[in-house]
Amino acid sequence: MMLRDKIVLAYQKIQDEICESLAIADGKGRFEEEIWEREGGGGGRTRVFQHGDVIEKGGVNFSAVYGKLPEAVKKAFKVDNDEFFACGVSIVIHPINPFVPIIHMNIRYFEMDEQTRWFGGGIDLTPHYVIDTDARYFHHILKQTCNEFDSSFYKKFKKQADDYFFIKHRNETRGIGGIFYDRLKPENTGLDWEQLFEFSLAVGNSFIPIYTELIDRNRDTEYTEAEQEWQYQRRSRYAEFNLVYDSGTKFGLETNGRIESILMSLPPMAKWTYNHKPADNSLEATTLTKLIKGIDWA
Amino acid sequence: MMLRDKIVLAYQKIQDEICESLAIADGKGRFEEEIWEREGGGGGRTRVFQHGDVIEKGGVNFSAVYGKLPEAVKKAFKVDNDEFFACGVSIVIHPINPFVPIIHMNIRYFEMDEQTRWFGGGIDLTPHYVIDTDARYFHHILKQTCNEFDSSFYKKFKKQADDYFFIKHRNETRGIGGIFYDRLKPENTGLDWEQLFEFSLAVGNSFIPIYTELIDRNRDTEYTEAEQEWQYQRRSRYAEFNLVYDSGTKFGLETNGRIESILMSLPPMAKWTYNHKPADNSLEATTLTKLIKGIDWA
Repeated sequence: MMLRDKIVLAYQKIQDEICESLAIADGKGRFEEEIWEREGGGGGRTRVFQHGDVIEKGGVNFSAVYGKLPEAVKKAFKVDNDEFFACGVSIVIHPINPFVPIIHMNIRYFEMDEQTRWFGGGIDLTPHYVIDTDARYFHHILKQTCNEFDSSFYKKFKKQADDYFFIKHRNETRGIGGIFYDRLKPENTGLDWEQLFEFSLAVGNSFIPIYTELIDRNRDTEYTEAEQEWQYQRRSRYAEFNLVYDSGTKFGLETNGRIESILMSLPPMAKWTYNHKPADNSLEATTLTKLIKGIDWA
Repeated sequence: MMLRDKIVLAYQKIQDEICESLAIADGKGRFEEEIWEREGGGGGRTRVFQHGDVIEKGGVNFSAVYGKLPEAVKKAFKVDNDEFFACGVSIVIHPINPFVPIIHMNIRYFEMDEQTRWFGGGIDLTPHYVIDTDARYFHHILKQTCNEFDSSFYKKFKKQADDYFFIKHRNETRGIGGIFYDRLKPENTGLDWEQLFEFSLAVGNSFIPIYTELIDRNRDTEYTEAEQEWQYQRRSRYAEFNLVYDSGTKFGLETNGRIESILMSLPPMAKWTYNHKPADNSLEATTLTKLIKGIDWA
């Protein structure tokens, strides 16, 4: 079996397992699935979860598309060949309880020809309230996952996450980062294709232990209206990042992707209050001091 | 007095008058003012209105800035000279009642030297529910305002508004358009600088008669929770337009503008529900059919 066929099957399996575990963790809501086809080739399975006990809105999407690369992308990649194949799983979860963090995960494989192909992906956490023990737990698991493949990965990919998940106009990170990597191939990693594939699966498989633990720790934490208000403010920052900076979103909007699948990452409800500033020494103010690059959580 | 000094005074007067009339129309909320200075030269008066009886959140901002043009803008404008002066009034109002429309107005003057200077601006309406009589009233006033200066203006600027206030990835207009114009100068209009200045003021002065009338017509219309829900959905489209396409917002974010002034246009609260589709033949569905380019409302 060709690598890309193995990837398709393995990524679909990851999507299935994650959906199943999230539905169990939530206990109430359920996924609605839409199967879609892409005019130029391929398609996907968009699965959206709404109105749960824990999850207010979440998407766990799989897609495998192929065909001719749009002209703009050909230029950006500086390639002549225009046949491509791309396969990935993308997740964003917006929880109800402000003490449960927003989470995002993506694993993907892109191929144009034998020479031009790579793995990319990442996982990052956006707590409305940064809880140090949770942040350490999250980064610890990511570090462990990376270390099974290469002891240099975590440090490098953690820095890339800090740099990528950054809201430049606010001068704050989207959350507490995680890992972000792109264009991984044997030449720049020393791993063979099979190992890179395994690494990609390991990142995908880290999602459930990470998020179910963070749900369990915080789902029953009581919260006030003011804390929920803060959650809505933080969600508006999340929307700003996704609409202004996120490459996946931009790429999707520019290439006439399936809009509802692309924008499933946007929060169910967000607020923009003019000049919203937390009180000195509040939990909210403390959170803001931790939305910076370079914190060593692991 | 130099033209630009006259513009500064006249634009400030427009800001003052609009704030006063809006506060009276609302009856409850009030403006908070922040005076700010720009490091490179100039500054502004940001005035934000929150928690009114009619207006949920609104901004009426004046700024007059000068100094050296950022490198990126010099390139975009293809100019060598890098001294600039820019002055403008910008308004966005998000009302509480879903039957009162969102409105946006902007008038601006930009100058680099005698040869490189122009007026720009526009006014456009984003009803959560398109009410034909209101749409006609709005466009009628704009057409009248334009006709006092040049009988070709309305048609041209109306088309430019349709093209500009367009959410490409949704294939829908932001609202029912209005007028949008840029780089107006004697060479391309046949009007002299004084007349162009007067036109700019006429657009600014049309704001109050337009919006107070639309408020009066709809402020007491009763609405259901479902109609408010629809308002939140429409507001998320407004946020998408502003963050993804609006040139003023993009320019502000890229040049490290004053973030809270730039993003005061974002809605106080917005919702993104996955695949939200109105029922057949509902008021909401009818509204969507009218969010297209090229409707002759006047």
